[in-house]
Amino acid sequence: MPTILVKSGGEAAMPEWQRHFAEFAPGLEVRWWDDPTVAPDTVDFVLCWDPDAGRLAGLPNLKVIFGSGAGVDLITADPALPRHLPLMRMAPGGATQRMGEFVCWAALSLLKDARQMALNQAAAKWAYVEPEGTAHETPVGIMGLGNMGSRACAMLQGLGFPVRGWSRTRKHLPGVTCFAGPDELDAFLAETKILVCLLPATAETRGILAAPLLAKLPRGAGLVNVGRGSHQNIEDIIAALESGQLGGAVLDVFATEPLAADHPAWTHPKIIVTPHVASLPSRRERASYVAEAIADFTAGRPLANLYDHARGY
Amino acid sequence: MPTILVKSGGEAAMPEWQRHFAEFAPGLEVRWWDDPTVAPDTVDFVLCWDPDAGRLAGLPNLKVIFGSGAGVDLITADPALPRHLPLMRMAPGGATQRMGEFVCWAALSLLKDARQMALNQAAAKWAYVEPEGTAHETPVGIMGLGNMGSRACAMLQGLGFPVRGWSRTRKHLPGVTCFAGPDELDAFLAETKILVCLLPATAETRGILAAPLLAKLPRGAGLVNVGRGSHQNIEDIIAALESGQLGGAVLDVFATEPLAADHPAWTHPKIIVTPHVASLPSRRERASYVAEAIADFTAGRPLANLYDHARGY
Ligand SMILES: NC(=O)c1ccc[n+]([C@@H]2O[C@H](COP(=O)([O-])OP(=O)(O)OC[C@H]3O[C@@H](n4cnc5c(N)ncnc54)[C@H](OP(=O)(O)O)[C@@H]3O)[C@@H](O)[C@H]2O)c1
Ligand SMILES: NC(=O)c1ccc[n+]([C@@H]2O[C@H](COP(=O)([O-])OP(=O)(O)OC[C@H]3O[C@@H](n4cnc5c(N)ncnc54)[C@H](OP(=O)(O)O)[C@@H]3O)[C@@H](O)[C@H]2O)c1
Repeated sequence: MPTILVKSGGEAAMPEWQRHFAEFAPGLEVRWWDDPTVAPDTVDFVLCWDPDAGRLAGLPNLKVIFGSGAGVDLITADPALPRHLPLMRMAPGGATQRMGEFVCWAALSLLKDARQMALNQAAAKWAYVEPEGTAHETPVGIMGLGNMGSRACAMLQGLGFPVRGWSRTRKHLPGVTCFAGPDELDAFLAETKILVCLLPATAETRGILAAPLLAKLPRGAGLVNVGRGSHQNIEDIIAALESGQLGGAVLDVFATEPLAADHPAWTHPKIIVTPHVASLPSRRERASYVAEAIADFTAGRPLANLYDHARGY
Repeated sequence: MPTILVKSGGEAAMPEWQRHFAEFAPGLEVRWWDDPTVAPDTVDFVLCWDPDAGRLAGLPNLKVIFGSGAGVDLITADPALPRHLPLMRMAPGGATQRMGEFVCWAALSLLKDARQMALNQAAAKWAYVEPEGTAHETPVGIMGLGNMGSRACAMLQGLGFPVRGWSRTRKHLPGVTCFAGPDELDAFLAETKILVCLLPATAETRGILAAPLLAKLPRGAGLVNVGRGSHQNIEDIIAALESGQLGGAVLDVFATEPLAADHPAWTHPKIIVTPHVASLPSRRERASYVAEAIADFTAGRPLANLYDHARGY
């Protein structure tokens, strides 16, 4: 009987994973990552988010590694990662839809100044504000036009936002002004009133959301980071909010998660903090996605959404 | 020189109104509602939101009354209203777009439980929540399919929400399941997971958002009221939130505005309170809209968006 080792949501989540896998892959043995009764050579698959470094290399019959999120940066951070094995990223249908919903919610929250409205509600303060422009007058720029970014583009357009996009290689998306590569980054930023980061965490994208980039946005622009905490320099973002260069931010990811209780982002009047929930597929959706991939692998069919070690994502 | 008397935003807003009218209707004299130097018989037009009862009847040469919002219920509440005069509702292009944006923001806020996320941010609490369904699994029902409601339908569909609608006379909107009249209200409510009120304030719609209606929604449904405060029974809404019959609410309108500082809605953990801002056209947009209507009227062309005394909206 094939065996999958799971490290996602902690040991407490195991009964739920077992229940879902029983539905979608009845023949699969589903065991907890730290279960001492599992012999390493019986493990065929792993589903994980942040494996302890070296553990994967100690599983001699491992066949496929399944990341439990769309980004697998905490898996590839393992220096002993068995790089010859397929490493599959999580991309069930519901995940791009949820991300699109979150990005639309975040863009509308910045447009309507929802953070200020929440602070006013907390103070029981009824405050009229002369309205700013509509979505039509607020170009949104998406950095990263992959599974997540391309879906977000279409949903934002449905709300009336003009949409611009930036990626490594040039994309062609209906109605989206597409920019590519470092040479076109400045032109992309120059007319972006709400910047959304949907990049993967790589050596090139590390720390990209910092003062030099923020200075190239129009004054008062909004920022949404739904990529990774390693993309952002939080001190620079707070400084840009203080100076007015940024008008507001929605941050779903942070360098250290959970975010420390005394972190200044929590109380900043222009930052909406969300706890890395922009695109959480349910465990049931993830189990279904992995079960289908295992069936494909077993039948010798190719796997989609594999991590590419050369590209770094 | 034609004269317009303005009561919208108080006397403090007059310089702004004068500046905008100077741009769009240079020949128009723009005067404050309570200006003692204005002779009543020189007034041709009025732009107002909540006129003092009887005042309009005392303007012998008044030709058109312009409401400063889409709903004119505070104007028609005047028992001495000159009912033979055209009463035009405010409906500039930006207003339906803004309402659509607000309704989408409110629906997404309920879907993502943004109120709980804001409370968690206030408590500096990083809390994972196993996700609920996506927009695809969350039918939104719009009560009122006029200028505002029909635009909101299209924008919600772009986000993936299935959309249902309810109006007095039957509508045909692409992709929307349309219900009409009191006989079809229960069927409309039965599958509505997020209910949006975009009705006008009339005798028939008064107090419609009360316990009997709320009980017909699926358990845990969300409520968005962007119609009028007179549509809702706030005690019933709070009771439904307490019992779990409602899962959350976004309320932009209240029976008494501004909402009193000690009103329980401000602090309720399942209510997002916003200060009647769902669809505020800017003063510039409103001045442009009224200037165009005055030009139409002067040239003998028909006026659009007139209040119908027989229908009551
Ligand atoms: N907050 C959350 O809940 C959450 C959830 C899911 C995902 N995410 C984040 O979102 C990221 C994207 O996910 P995805 O599934 O859309 O990934 P994907 O399909 O691999 O797309 C990545 C996109 O980024 C572009 N890109 C990569 N490196 C770049 C560079 N140096 N310069 C410019 N563009 C570059 C790629 O360009 P090419 O098209 O040219 O390859 C591609 O368009 C994930 O890696 C993760 O960090 C966050
Ligand atoms: N919160 C805010 O900032 C804000 C801003 C603007 C407007 N509003 C509110 O939104 C309302 C709608 O604005 P609008 O411009 O869309 O108005 P509208 O074009 O007149 O549309 C009104 C809609 O309500 C329907 N309706 C009226 N009475 C009904 C009844 N008894 N039963 C069922 N349906 C009924 C009408 O049905 P028919 O199509 O059959 O006539 C129509 O579809 C305004 O009256 C105001 O209360 C609020």
